[in-house]
Amino acid sequence: MNDKFNEECAVIGVIGDAEAANYCYLGLYAMQHRGQEGAGIVSTDGHGMYAHRNMGLVSDVFNTESIARLPGTSAVGHTRYATFGTKDWQNLQPLVANFADNSFAIAHNGNLVNAPELRADLEKSGAIFSATSDTEVVLHLIARATTEDTIVKKVAAALGNVRGAYSLVTMTYNRLIAIRDPSGVRPLMLGKVKDGYIVASETCAFDLIGADFIREIEPGEILEITSDGQMNSSCLLQKADPAFCIFEFVYFSRPDSIIQGKNVYTVRRALGTELAKEHPAEADLVIPVPDSGTPSAIGYAHESGLPLELGLIRNHYVGRTFIEPKQTIRDFGVRVKLNANSDVFRDKRVVVVDDSIVRGTTCRKLVKMFRAAGAKEIHFRISSPPTTGSCYYGVDTPSRDELIAANHSVEEVKEYIGADSLGYLSVDGMYRAVKGAQSNYCDACFSGNYRLGTPVSTEMKTGNLHLNQPGKPSR
Amino acid sequence: MNDKFNEECAVIGVIGDAEAANYCYLGLYAMQHRGQEGAGIVSTDGHGMYAHRNMGLVSDVFNTESIARLPGTSAVGHTRYATFGTKDWQNLQPLVANFADNSFAIAHNGNLVNAPELRADLEKSGAIFSATSDTEVVLHLIARATTEDTIVKKVAAALGNVRGAYSLVTMTYNRLIAIRDPSGVRPLMLGKVKDGYIVASETCAFDLIGADFIREIEPGEILEITSDGQMNSSCLLQKADPAFCIFEFVYFSRPDSIIQGKNVYTVRRALGTELAKEHPAEADLVIPVPDSGTPSAIGYAHESGLPLELGLIRNHYVGRTFIEPKQTIRDFGVRVKLNANSDVFRDKRVVVVDDSIVRGTTCRKLVKMFRAAGAKEIHFRISSPPTTGSCYYGVDTPSRDELIAANHSVEEVKEYIGADSLGYLSVDGMYRAVKGAQSNYCDACFSGNYRLGTPVSTEMKTGNLHLNQPGKPSR
Amino acid sequence: MNDKFNEECAVIGVIGDAEAANYCYLGLYAMQHRGQEGAGIVSTDGHGMYAHRNMGLVSDVFNTESIARLPGTSAVGHTRYATFGTKDWQNLQPLVANFADNSFAIAHNGNLVNAPELRADLEKSGAIFSATSDTEVVLHLIARATTEDTIVKKVAAALGNVRGAYSLVTMTYNRLIAIRDPSGVRPLMLGKVKDGYIVASETCAFDLIGADFIREIEPGEILEITSDGQMNSSCLLQKADPAFCIFEFVYFSRPDSIIQGKNVYTVRRALGTELAKEHPAEADLVIPVPDSGTPSAIGYAHESGLPLELGLIRNHYVGRTFIEPKQTIRDFGVRVKLNANSDVFRDKRVVVVDDSIVRGTTCRKLVKMFRAAGAKEIHFRISSPPTTGSCYYGVDTPSRDELIAANHSVEEVKEYIGADSLGYLSVDGMYRAVKGAQSNYCDACFSGNYRLGTPVSTEMKTGNLHLNQPGKPSR
Amino acid sequence: MNDKFNEECAVIGVIGDAEAANYCYLGLYAMQHRGQEGAGIVSTDGHGMYAHRNMGLVSDVFNTESIARLPGTSAVGHTRYATFGTKDWQNLQPLVANFADNSFAIAHNGNLVNAPELRADLEKSGAIFSATSDTEVVLHLIARATTEDTIVKKVAAALGNVRGAYSLVTMTYNRLIAIRDPSGVRPLMLGKVKDGYIVASETCAFDLIGADFIREIEPGEILEITSDGQMNSSCLLQKADPAFCIFEFVYFSRPDSIIQGKNVYTVRRALGTELAKEHPAEADLVIPVPDSGTPSAIGYAHESGLPLELGLIRNHYVGRTFIEPKQTIRDFGVRVKLNANSDVFRDKRVVVVDDSIVRGTTCRKLVKMFRAAGAKEIHFRISSPPTTGSCYYGVDTPSRDELIAANHSVEEVKEYIGADSLGYLSVDGMYRAVKGAQSNYCDACFSGNYRLGTPVSTEMKTGNLHLNQPGKPSR
Repeated sequence: MNDKFNEECAVIGVIGDAEAANYCYLGLYAMQHRGQEGAGIVSTDGHGMYAHRNMGLVSDVFNTESIARLPGTSAVGHTRYATFGTKDWQNLQPLVANFADNSFAIAHNGNLVNAPELRADLEKSGAIFSATSDTEVVLHLIARATTEDTIVKKVAAALGNVRGAYSLVTMTYNRLIAIRDPSGVRPLMLGKVKDGYIVASETCAFDLIGADFIREIEPGEILEITSDGQMNSSCLLQKADPAFCIFEFVYFSRPDSIIQGKNVYTVRRALGTELAKEHPAEADLVIPVPDSGTPSAIGYAHESGLPLELGLIRNHYVGRTFIEPKQTIRDFGVRVKLNANSDVFRDKRVVVVDDSIVRGTTCRKLVKMFRAAGAKEIHFRISSPPTTGSCYYGVDTPSRDELIAANHSVEEVKEYIGADSLGYLSVDGMYRAVKGAQSNYCDACFSGNYRLGTPVSTEMKTGNLHLNQPGKPSR
Repeated sequence: MNDKFNEECAVIGVIGDAEAANYCYLGLYAMQHRGQEGAGIVSTDGHGMYAHRNMGLVSDVFNTESIARLPGTSAVGHTRYATFGTKDWQNLQPLVANFADNSFAIAHNGNLVNAPELRADLEKSGAIFSATSDTEVVLHLIARATTEDTIVKKVAAALGNVRGAYSLVTMTYNRLIAIRDPSGVRPLMLGKVKDGYIVASETCAFDLIGADFIREIEPGEILEITSDGQMNSSCLLQKADPAFCIFEFVYFSRPDSIIQGKNVYTVRRALGTELAKEHPAEADLVIPVPDSGTPSAIGYAHESGLPLELGLIRNHYVGRTFIEPKQTIRDFGVRVKLNANSDVFRDKRVVVVDDSIVRGTTCRKLVKMFRAAGAKEIHFRISSPPTTGSCYYGVDTPSRDELIAANHSVEEVKEYIGADSLGYLSVDGMYRAVKGAQSNYCDACFSGNYRLGTPVSTEMKTGNLHLNQPGKPSR
Repeated sequence: MNDKFNEECAVIGVIGDAEAANYCYLGLYAMQHRGQEGAGIVSTDGHGMYAHRNMGLVSDVFNTESIARLPGTSAVGHTRYATFGTKDWQNLQPLVANFADNSFAIAHNGNLVNAPELRADLEKSGAIFSATSDTEVVLHLIARATTEDTIVKKVAAALGNVRGAYSLVTMTYNRLIAIRDPSGVRPLMLGKVKDGYIVASETCAFDLIGADFIREIEPGEILEITSDGQMNSSCLLQKADPAFCIFEFVYFSRPDSIIQGKNVYTVRRALGTELAKEHPAEADLVIPVPDSGTPSAIGYAHESGLPLELGLIRNHYVGRTFIEPKQTIRDFGVRVKLNANSDVFRDKRVVVVDDSIVRGTTCRKLVKMFRAAGAKEIHFRISSPPTTGSCYYGVDTPSRDELIAANHSVEEVKEYIGADSLGYLSVDGMYRAVKGAQSNYCDACFSGNYRLGTPVSTEMKTGNLHLNQPGKPSR
Repeated sequence: MNDKFNEECAVIGVIGDAEAANYCYLGLYAMQHRGQEGAGIVSTDGHGMYAHRNMGLVSDVFNTESIARLPGTSAVGHTRYATFGTKDWQNLQPLVANFADNSFAIAHNGNLVNAPELRADLEKSGAIFSATSDTEVVLHLIARATTEDTIVKKVAAALGNVRGAYSLVTMTYNRLIAIRDPSGVRPLMLGKVKDGYIVASETCAFDLIGADFIREIEPGEILEITSDGQMNSSCLLQKADPAFCIFEFVYFSRPDSIIQGKNVYTVRRALGTELAKEHPAEADLVIPVPDSGTPSAIGYAHESGLPLELGLIRNHYVGRTFIEPKQTIRDFGVRVKLNANSDVFRDKRVVVVDDSIVRGTTCRKLVKMFRAAGAKEIHFRISSPPTTGSCYYGVDTPSRDELIAANHSVEEVKEYIGADSLGYLSVDGMYRAVKGAQSNYCDACFSGNYRLGTPVSTEMKTGNLHLNQPGKPSR
């Protein structure tokens, strides 16, 4: 089921607690769904910074020993989704730089629209980039804000020229600073651990370590927390209207997280309720596409009064790769992960609920599998509007050409996937479920309304440094 | 959620198809839930046997190259649950032996009650054991049946003195033989692939490769299939009443498998329906413990009319180990895998449905977590009777001392786990859901009725060979 | 320099010392030159046996933890050269079997000429083989000697029908038994550690752990040492004339080992002395092919009065594989390991000394390299006679077809390698250097005199079980 | 034998040949003795730069695939000795930076005396360092030379303020630039490959790939080679007297390399000759400490007329770590690598020749081992003067406190190591052997004459970033 958008990162930071590095590790563990390719933690004891970063899942990157070598009461952490392959360790975060009398660590979730231009300018004036990430651009800008006398002022100055989505957690020897871009595109949450404070992309990170959720970091806020527990909130110089990513509600965030005071599961269930109102179906039962479609399917089933049944069984042991047989097996790529339970489908009219359709390839295979399992009618229902645009604000999406709904009508999509009917939730329905005003959200992937602008070139300029990666030709 | 019984193995065999090894690989992939510690496939091209076996998940053990080095149109495969640790490669299956003019491969699911005695006798007469498995005992007995002139007769003779549960798939250069013990404790299914036949523990293996399910191998049946597609069915000499493992319906088998003509998901849903009838609750909603409790929870919700909600969110990226913080986090071991979604629990009276309680430790942590999440009342419901006995027929279970229901009344268990009420499905209710007569099943883990007998010593005699394993002292 | 014969194994055993496993480990470390593909140790504490075996170098197979999990005061060890590839873990030794009231571990250096026949007989009577090694044949024979009442008698009876070369170290819960075949083809040495005794293939193993060398195990001897330090020596039933492998002196053994009371380095130096007498050369200097040719080159230089110079420089960091450039580099395969030092060769007439020529390919490349380095004349001298026969007694040799001297005259070999002259040491000269009577040695690789017979089929029958190995097709 | 100085790096570069990356790989392979901890290659095809770098030996870091992903006709390579541990991948070279319209790769051998000050200045003005190496300082200085219009001028300007030893190989899309510091402390050689040119630290790299040696890069030279084969030589602005590292002759360089027109083996042999003249001994034979002492021992033997014998046998399979027994074994650390061959030592008066003594610990163990082997008298001879100073110019040396000769008289060292006599070659004798004037060399480690100055602080300031390393506490 790789036919999904991929969130690019999670960030976390802890200050004032002897378990800082361990809490970061556990928080990243809980937020692994936001990036599975690499992870890192940098800690400080007030005198030095200690880093451990590597490619792989959080559970592979860290062990008791590596955590033990991250001393101190402050730490920042990061987990990432890598578009460039599996050995791309130069882009691992958090990054660290040294100032005259301090060190500075930074972890970033988001994407800067004008990073290539900023990078080119920096290179022209002699800056050196060791990797290809946006975060390195931010780090350079902060390092060069030498006329500012506090780290908060440096950060504010540095971000003055930056355009795009960023939730940053940064750390010096004695403070943690959390920053959210003026539009607040990506989430960033503040919590309380026993002896200190914690910030993280999602509240599910707080639950695992027993931290109490305090509040969201506000869009445009710079929240500075000192190692003795003092908190100062200030504002970025740039101002903008809020534009929180609506897709965090639709798919990205974990269902048990809380965003804008709303439980994600509850919102998704409501998306299903609205979907049932907008697109009812004469059917016998409702089947979720696990796990992304399950909350909406529950909402749909309740609203429609149709029984919910588990028609698709997940294989919990799917590895990263598998060997296909020579003789083609129908719908193999989907079947290895999900199997249609014939007893449920046989002679039934089914409503199948998923959160989104990206390329349509998976849906098409599912529909075939359902028909082979004996389904009489298949009514596909999607708990979000047609995805018609790529994301430039921190999500790995296929190019517009590959988005089926960008180039085809709903009727054409229905024909392609082979369903008897297809219903997408309307934009209005989506906002009814979210109980929010459209003006407060970024829904560019549905509406094409890129409120933070688009990159001049959609291709990331990386100075033409190609890092060797297994399984992928360099050019 | 390791507080479960563990199935010890899956077996598979294919004959007469050029994709034999690949089908075995994919079938094992689909049956990975029956054993995650090691896997192996042996193939034959009529002249030699080719083996690849290793510790690890199926997806780790095999790759394109290792499958390519398993030529021929017949193959048998095995995946195992290892009680002895992760480097115990001597116990990997299938095993292979050479006869005068043929070779013989064997894969085994089950457990022999009199293996220690058989083994001691064999050792006395000069047999050498390279590992500690029951399967090696069977292999020796077959190899020593030198007076029999056909492989089927050898197998029949060898199994004459064997007591216990066994579903065997064996292979010579030109035939595949599937055998099921006279009681038919473990499942074994026959299917059709394009050019040949397939046998496997569960039908979900057939679905992945597009094989057609033909029928079950009967209890006590020896089914011989030749490489040119001829099939001969005969009977074991020993006779016994059927005693199919009821726990395959309750927990072990994949929900999309079919056993005794019944879809496992449908049976589990019915277990939930019966549970709701026997143990209704004044409550607001029904919450499954994923994934084992989900089908029964759906049944319970339907029967009770209470809404089903996802109150527990799984972390899909839980590694084999994780680093606990120094300062105790409440219910950490459960929390790292499942998080209670507070928005669902807050001020609610909830029915929580799971398939079984083994030690009770996990349930106790869940109840605590639900209370912390705001639940007003917690009504635990279990879709099977109290588990009061260990299994000696192919399942890794804790000793009787550790089974909470073996030593405590339901009321005491309720107190221990801290629920407001606790209801187990009755034995009668279970058989109503399964729609079968108790006399045809083994339910020793619920009833203590060990119909195939118990071992003289419950400790497996292994000749005192200790294989070095990481993380575990040798003595 | 892979153009050499490869010794197949080293064996070791310690009894009566708390450091038994550690001493075995260190002894194997010192004898790594006898086999680099896999290693294993089995220890006993009198109650059970504890095994650790794996593919790889001794330093990779063992670490502090794995040694710590080998408790007890007795242990046996083995290191092996694998002809079948790198994942062939089923053939790792020591092997272990269980008898009625004891366990039995065995490690073997050598090769049995009639193993295939013995194996076929055993299989006919129901014995099962899990791998392809000769050692398993011996183990079966011992296990089946059920009418004998002591382990020594069992061993003697079992070996009654065995023909070939074997130096065995075996162990039960309370004794260590060292056995050498009646001809004493492979070495086996007895030594004293602080609290107990040690046996090993070579005395260099004693040096590393500070053990005192006592004496050789005699050809045909069965030496039993009990855990309380009692020693009983008896004889095998089969009798034979001595036939110690002369190639142990020429190449296999480490130069610091002592065999038959002779220091190997001193013998090799004497081979060089005899070589200088038999094949003097008008030359300017003597150059050893490191490291195998160095001792003889020193002898040659002394005897001839010519100065010894280091003309070939080893690269000490040669990995198992290397990537060749597309454009052919002259003599690349040799050059990556050895470089000719032009300053030494330029305009010089050189004598180059090595211990043997197998296929001739390396010599040919060396000669080319010497000429390119400016050598005026190249006189190749070999400190052993032409190798004209394969070994069937425990050494991995190419087939006779590939042995250049088996199919070509010395003059033809000289032409092939491109030297100005070529001189092999004569058989008589070799025995003069060794100071032994030819009748006491096996020199079949030089003389074709196979004193222990040859296998009926030179192809090892392995019951047609092919174990999957990377980089090698199964058939 | 870790009681040696460790060279920190080798550098290499190829331009104008389709095998550029492969030649770099092979050259690094040949120069592995200059650094075993990590390696990297960056190639360019004129449009982009392609990098592959990792920790480990060259043979582990590269394989056919990684070389294939380094396209183009130019490449630079680096192998390094890491003082900071084995996972310190941030310090891997070559480094790459992007300029306005070009990219720039750099590989460095040497050490900058004023790197900490330069780094502090750069950080103050906003430069970011991702690791701790001197090379990054140079890279920043070049990147910031924005007012210069050619890369050669940038390099010259950047190096104007740099003090210390550096042999640099740098690369842009269309040129290779080799630079050697004004004193020419570290070697750097120019050669010709089929279609282009090559530069490398040692000529042994040329031999492996069949390149022709042209000449040395001169001290203070900037040699620019364009991709179409044009060569321009210019000079660094800073001027200095030559100060080539004499220790390259004594120990660092491979014996088959040529430096200043002199073959290293021949020089080392001459050091032995001078040593024999200065420190003759009444003895029976000469024994080299392999491999570093062998050339000098040959010279000593020739000059003295004493026979050379192999008294120390190397274990060729020593891994990075080994498990010591609990009960102390005498001289274990040495013995695991070298064994004294008793037959050679017994009742003999021996001269033992090595190249240098650092801490004296190894010599002391060797002497004990020789005595245990029966040596009557032990005359230790060292083919260089007493090492009394640490190196600040690119070599990893212990601090002065640990250098035995820095704090003890020769008589005291003799007593400590336990030899009957000890003779160091004099400074004059060393220069006689090298046939060079002392004024042209850096011999600070012998004389304390630090001609390029010493660092203000001998501790490298690294901004207090601690990179997690196995087996070493972070603080």
